[in-house]
Amino acid sequence: MRPRYSAAAFAIASLAVVFAPIPAVADYPETPSKPAEPAAPSIADAYRAQADKIIGAALAGNDVYRKLEDLCLLIGHRLSGSPQLERAIDWAIEALKKDGQENVHREKVMVPHWVRGAESATILEPRSATLTMLGLGGSIGTPPEGITAPVVVVADEEGLDKIGDEAKGKIVLFDNLMPAYDPEKGSGYGKAVKYRGKGASLAAKKGAVACLIRSVTARSLRSAHTGAMRYEDNVPRIPAAAITIEDTELIARLRARGLPVVVNLKMEAKTLDDAPSANVLAELRGREKPEEIVVIGGHIDSWDVGQGAHDDGAGIVMCMEAINVLRKVNMIPRRTIRVVLFTNEENGLAGGKAYAKEHEAELKNHVAAIESDSGGFKPTGYSTECEDKDREAVAAKQLEDIVSLLSSIGPMKVSTGHSGADIGAMESAGVLLMGHNVEGSRYFDYHHAQADTIDKVDPHDLSENVAVLATVAYILADMPERLGEKPVSDTATR
Amino acid sequence: MRPRYSAAAFAIASLAVVFAPIPAVADYPETPSKPAEPAAPSIADAYRAQADKIIGAALAGNDVYRKLEDLCLLIGHRLSGSPQLERAIDWAIEALKKDGQENVHREKVMVPHWVRGAESATILEPRSATLTMLGLGGSIGTPPEGITAPVVVVADEEGLDKIGDEAKGKIVLFDNLMPAYDPEKGSGYGKAVKYRGKGASLAAKKGAVACLIRSVTARSLRSAHTGAMRYEDNVPRIPAAAITIEDTELIARLRARGLPVVVNLKMEAKTLDDAPSANVLAELRGREKPEEIVVIGGHIDSWDVGQGAHDDGAGIVMCMEAINVLRKVNMIPRRTIRVVLFTNEENGLAGGKAYAKEHEAELKNHVAAIESDSGGFKPTGYSTECEDKDREAVAAKQLEDIVSLLSSIGPMKVSTGHSGADIGAMESAGVLLMGHNVEGSRYFDYHHAQADTIDKVDPHDLSENVAVLATVAYILADMPERLGEKPVSDTATR
Repeated sequence: MRPRYSAAAFAIASLAVVFAPIPAVADYPETPSKPAEPAAPSIADAYRAQADKIIGAALAGNDVYRKLEDLCLLIGHRLSGSPQLERAIDWAIEALKKDGQENVHREKVMVPHWVRGAESATILEPRSATLTMLGLGGSIGTPPEGITAPVVVVADEEGLDKIGDEAKGKIVLFDNLMPAYDPEKGSGYGKAVKYRGKGASLAAKKGAVACLIRSVTARSLRSAHTGAMRYEDNVPRIPAAAITIEDTELIARLRARGLPVVVNLKMEAKTLDDAPSANVLAELRGREKPEEIVVIGGHIDSWDVGQGAHDDGAGIVMCMEAINVLRKVNMIPRRTIRVVLFTNEENGLAGGKAYAKEHEAELKNHVAAIESDSGGFKPTGYSTECEDKDREAVAAKQLEDIVSLLSSIGPMKVSTGHSGADIGAMESAGVLLMGHNVEGSRYFDYHHAQADTIDKVDPHDLSENVAVLATVAYILADMPERLGEKPVSDTATR
Repeated sequence: MRPRYSAAAFAIASLAVVFAPIPAVADYPETPSKPAEPAAPSIADAYRAQADKIIGAALAGNDVYRKLEDLCLLIGHRLSGSPQLERAIDWAIEALKKDGQENVHREKVMVPHWVRGAESATILEPRSATLTMLGLGGSIGTPPEGITAPVVVVADEEGLDKIGDEAKGKIVLFDNLMPAYDPEKGSGYGKAVKYRGKGASLAAKKGAVACLIRSVTARSLRSAHTGAMRYEDNVPRIPAAAITIEDTELIARLRARGLPVVVNLKMEAKTLDDAPSANVLAELRGREKPEEIVVIGGHIDSWDVGQGAHDDGAGIVMCMEAINVLRKVNMIPRRTIRVVLFTNEENGLAGGKAYAKEHEAELKNHVAAIESDSGGFKPTGYSTECEDKDREAVAAKQLEDIVSLLSSIGPMKVSTGHSGADIGAMESAGVLLMGHNVEGSRYFDYHHAQADTIDKVDPHDLSENVAVLATVAYILADMPERLGEKPVSDTATR
């Protein structure tokens, strides 16, 4: 007789599979019977016991969520030049010292100092309506009475080219849609963000008087998302702001009906003189080759909205806690693991550039630089990026081996390509870069918005990230060969 | 051998069941072979051809989404007493006349006139932070300098009782969580909304100087949700506002750390003299018994945020379009279908009460009154409610028969219980009430918030609602017996 399953019963059965206890290492046969071919030398085999110990220690309880709460609750957002950023730097120094880290110090960096000021956008015609908006970082302000002009709506640069002279004297609204997150294709952020960065100059070249963009997000509850913009040289500078998906839809649909839409945009935004800030450094000094370094880091600054919880509070506390966990279980690798909390990632990358310059002589001893700047969601693996593509390919293969040790946490993938904005400045010195990846379906719902707050971060996800980062950083800092170089064991042990 | 299913395969199999094509009526055997017992007289059988015709006509194309766009794009939100509400009433009258409806007119109603004015809430201690907030409708304002006081956080009334005198001189924050939507249990709105309605008076009785509530929603991107509040008689009146889930979490977590949280609340809110408004009526006059009436309606007012798209723009345009579809295919039922767009549902129910009073003499001839005020999502069935519980039970059974005609649109359920706020005033006159139900998982994400905008409404869902409302209203207006009364056929044809 064919058994009958109800959907509900099956759902419960499926959950049981998902949550089944993971067999302890001891449950596995110690040597597989009849291997198909001689096993390649495996980093994973060599580090399995250590990895299990690190993962166990990290997941047994740690301080990462309390650290993130400190930052989000007591300090909040922290844009370059703000007193909050300097408070965050003080807090990080203190927290790292309290954890007993070595060589805890700040390295001074001058950072751009953009301030938002009061701002508003209002539809005056065909009916009155308040737009929910955020000026874009780096934008100039408007005259005190604002800029009042009709709006033209275009999807993209091609659309702007098509309307020819029509943009002259108008406010250009880029209605560039970011598609819903796709597990295969990713977020579509890279493509959509173009108009945030360069929309103002594109519009100004056509004679526009201001630029609005559809917020770079796929989901919105009337949510505006800010972010950096840049003016092209020798192009008139016009104010630029993001409005919500909802307000973009309102304007676009009114225009589609042939109705003139007139908007008043007021922004007090201005750029002041550069301000002093700092990168924060701390180390778990290596036991054998302390001069060789694995960097793990994120950025300590955030936009001036929300609490910078996922972007990038999560990234920095995960790194801080990764070395804290290792130190607590007294797992000191051969090489040094250096935590770097970069300043000014959001609007200038001054911290990343300053680190690469300050540590130029040392970069040849940087075994790898890992950046975590994708939020604190469930960890999913690593990207790797190197000027030397052969080394990048070897590194990717070795990383696949290494992340196999993390399967108790979840499936991990290794890819090649862009690995981080702050560490990018080290690429030309030949440093092997790595990006710490996490599940990405919700990141851009919160990114650069008022909604990026502590309540969006799951404590268990955060702990899993600590476990993954600590394990990977430990292995990279401890394995005999440098990541991406031919294994020492290839010549020594075969 | 026990078959093995993978979760993925099972999921696909389940989908196949859900999306299997529904057999056309012609595929069913015309007479069931060997019926177990003589079939009860079926309303569905009698009206199958008409129902299919109505559904086909509605889904082939209609004006419902354009109507909702008119309202949302050209008028926007429309609180009682606002010029926008009066513009919406003018628009509805014009649209109904343009559709060729009969007896299109307004019936004057005096409505409460609350105005929000400027408002803000700011944390002053332990650090400065701006709270995203919306004053609650009906609240008094604060002095111009605002009210500055420490905040005490309680989960509910029990929690408030427990802290005793601690609320005195403080701002009470009700951190009452609305659970995530559950397909079985529904939204949990009914329970959570209690503190929006009566939190201020509960807090004032304990000596509090102002009341904040956690917004009544389960999902938030820093989204404040307003709604009506009421002051108890003989209790001091204190200002009341909703803050976001995120800001509630911030304050609650700071308090949980033992830190004093001081907030400044500024509200210019005030209640002016009652303002003139109107219910809007239009009819598809019955061909045989025009004096007997099936009311279908929703409310034309909204809160003063967003566009009132789901609440309740969708409800009114669905009703307007339901009689438009019937008229276009010349399906004139025996009785009259009367569309009523009630004014002032949100903060007074003056429209519903005025209709019941104005039409008191006629109510005995109201065969049913259907309200649609749950948004424009996919239709899911009806509730029914009647003082005469026997009649309610008979009606529910008949409705189950009737909604079986809608299975091509989706599964429909019939329940008994609360069926609508505006039609509620007719209940004591014995009128049989019905609520038009829709899929409810997202309604409270948008409800009473800036996010309730046209882009959240799916045109196809809206058309399905028109099909369902038109079909049900037609049958109720046409069937020989009145809904809830013993079928005429029981005596006439057996």
